[in-house]
Amino acid sequence: MTKDFVVTPWEVKGDIDYEKLIRDFGVKHVDSKVMQEMEKLTGGLHYFLKRKIFFAHMYFDEILNEAKRGNKFYLYTGRAPSGPVHLGHLVPWIFTEWLQDKFGATLLFQIPDEEKFLFKENLSFGDTDKWAYENILDIIAVGFDKKKTKIFLDTEYAGHMYKTACAVAKKTNISTLKSLFGLNDSNNVGEYFYTCMQSVPAFLPTIMEGKQTKCLIPCAIDQDVHFRLTRDVANGIGFPKPATILSRFLPGLAEGGKMSSSIENTAIFTTDDENTVRNKIMKYAFSGGRDTVTEHRKHGGVPENDVSYQYLTYFMEDSNKLKKIYEDYKSGKMLTGELKEITVEVINEFLEKHQKKRELAKGVLEDFMLRD
Amino acid sequence: MTKDFVVTPWEVKGDIDYEKLIRDFGVKHVDSKVMQEMEKLTGGLHYFLKRKIFFAHMYFDEILNEAKRGNKFYLYTGRAPSGPVHLGHLVPWIFTEWLQDKFGATLLFQIPDEEKFLFKENLSFGDTDKWAYENILDIIAVGFDKKKTKIFLDTEYAGHMYKTACAVAKKTNISTLKSLFGLNDSNNVGEYFYTCMQSVPAFLPTIMEGKQTKCLIPCAIDQDVHFRLTRDVANGIGFPKPATILSRFLPGLAEGGKMSSSIENTAIFTTDDENTVRNKIMKYAFSGGRDTVTEHRKHGGVPENDVSYQYLTYFMEDSNKLKKIYEDYKSGKMLTGELKEITVEVINEFLEKHQKKRELAKGVLEDFMLRD
Repeated sequence: MTKDFVVTPWEVKGDIDYEKLIRDFGVKHVDSKVMQEMEKLTGGLHYFLKRKIFFAHMYFDEILNEAKRGNKFYLYTGRAPSGPVHLGHLVPWIFTEWLQDKFGATLLFQIPDEEKFLFKENLSFGDTDKWAYENILDIIAVGFDKKKTKIFLDTEYAGHMYKTACAVAKKTNISTLKSLFGLNDSNNVGEYFYTCMQSVPAFLPTIMEGKQTKCLIPCAIDQDVHFRLTRDVANGIGFPKPATILSRFLPGLAEGGKMSSSIENTAIFTTDDENTVRNKIMKYAFSGGRDTVTEHRKHGGVPENDVSYQYLTYFMEDSNKLKKIYEDYKSGKMLTGELKEITVEVINEFLEKHQKKRELAKGVLEDFMLRD
Repeated sequence: MTKDFVVTPWEVKGDIDYEKLIRDFGVKHVDSKVMQEMEKLTGGLHYFLKRKIFFAHMYFDEILNEAKRGNKFYLYTGRAPSGPVHLGHLVPWIFTEWLQDKFGATLLFQIPDEEKFLFKENLSFGDTDKWAYENILDIIAVGFDKKKTKIFLDTEYAGHMYKTACAVAKKTNISTLKSLFGLNDSNNVGEYFYTCMQSVPAFLPTIMEGKQTKCLIPCAIDQDVHFRLTRDVANGIGFPKPATILSRFLPGLAEGGKMSSSIENTAIFTTDDENTVRNKIMKYAFSGGRDTVTEHRKHGGVPENDVSYQYLTYFMEDSNKLKKIYEDYKSGKMLTGELKEITVEVINEFLEKHQKKRELAKGVLEDFMLRD
């Protein structure tokens, strides 16, 4: 029986069936063949791949073929600036940074500041400007190569994007957008047009290089719908179809589903201090443990349901250590409190480093920006 | 009885009832009060006003009030580049040039190259680029002040427009656009979004001046629907409502309605040579004369139905001469052939000057352009 769940670019809720998403979205598993090819090229696999956090793709095999032939490809990901960055946002960026490092690829980092402006009634461009600045600090803190990373705001860079967005728009009618995005006649026209702008960075590599150049988009699977549209129009307007590599969602503290800034106390923000992180995890992280210590010792916990354990799969690099924790928690040897302690420590260690790099980002921000 | 006619930005056909348009579009007559105010300010009236070629307006009285107080206002008009310029296109530009001269106003001249690209299946951006260049030569040839005229292509200038277009879009839903423009779900999303870009130049004066600055848009009445939308959203996004002053359509040679590049032999193009103009008028210009010379001498012609005579009302500045022609034609003293001869002469004299200025425009084109 499939439980009810929703995955759109604007809403993720319920108990997500990732296998069903693969079927519904018409994408492919990151299977062992792809992983072997990848390992041959990169000399190792990021633990996000081994742990199937990046679990699905489209045309990623073609990107690997390009790389094998020594051909250039670009990376493209993005961040819509409407609030602070939380740990869930970082997941695709961390993986993108790893890909950039392994393949020496140029990264186009889109800040679609108009997206949230258009979709959120009370959000002004003043707000998006403020959040764009804050969010870009987090992006830079992830460690991207300054020489190979171009960050741009749609409203600033539109002079280089609008023409191509119109080419996408000409191929995209209202019926298609209604069925893809669940929009209706009461939605504003910017909400409809926006996806055309999200397509453009997938084509900028070809425009920038002056020849057909492929693009790989690492992102969470809720964004796939935009790139299905991008793929549908690409060839017809003279561009190669972009590839995607798609991640699961980092669960929210209490909710499961997807960590979300808009649900209070479900998100750990990159600027949270040690105590805040500790309090949030201790108080809200959904536990896979039993009701009493006696029960827990007897039957063991359920790491698959435990949000703290899930966080470790995203942020604890050491797979042996993680395996030990899994076993100890499952056997009942480790209690929820102990698991949470470890998680607090791992997250805080990660954030301490991130926050230092975030401070340093203030001095180099303009080096990353494609203004204009 | 009202005859059937259609006036939209994309189609003008039938026997146009301009009084009905004024009621349907909710605009006002350019009445004697407005003309008196205008005359006080400018020391004279353009014959387009006296002859009611510019016959309707919205908020034009407010523009005159601004001028009276010594406040700056901007002019804004445009040209979508999908083919050669014909005499009909020149009408609002000639009037705009007169307004610029009388008020010393800055003119924003929009070249919405994406509009025709989006609406015409087989038109490429390569085509619009070519026509943009050709059309801009005609614009400059009209005689605008280089220091006070800024011509821009939407796809080039989008970096300065897209953010404001999104502000318009946020206030504009699909239902509204369907009812204003007669679009449906099979139209592409660019056709829907485009009007937001057409609104932007009405707001650029305020953005450029850094304070609330009014804008007057001289154009043919088919464009009014765009600016109704612009007026509806203006205040809500922090801009003054634009004023419009609206013209009738120069009729097509054979068709009446509106001169159109897409109906062969109905248009006189600015690059037509003397013989072509002569042949077109002689062969195609719909005559208000009688079937035989005898009949004509007896009953006289109908200047109101005669396309050549209509052209004279647009291109013969001397009102006394025009009145004489009207009377002679109406009385039967003047035959259609004679009227056509005069028209050929007037149009060719106009075009000879225009074509010289058009050649000179090649050397100064970039001085007018707002690139970027």
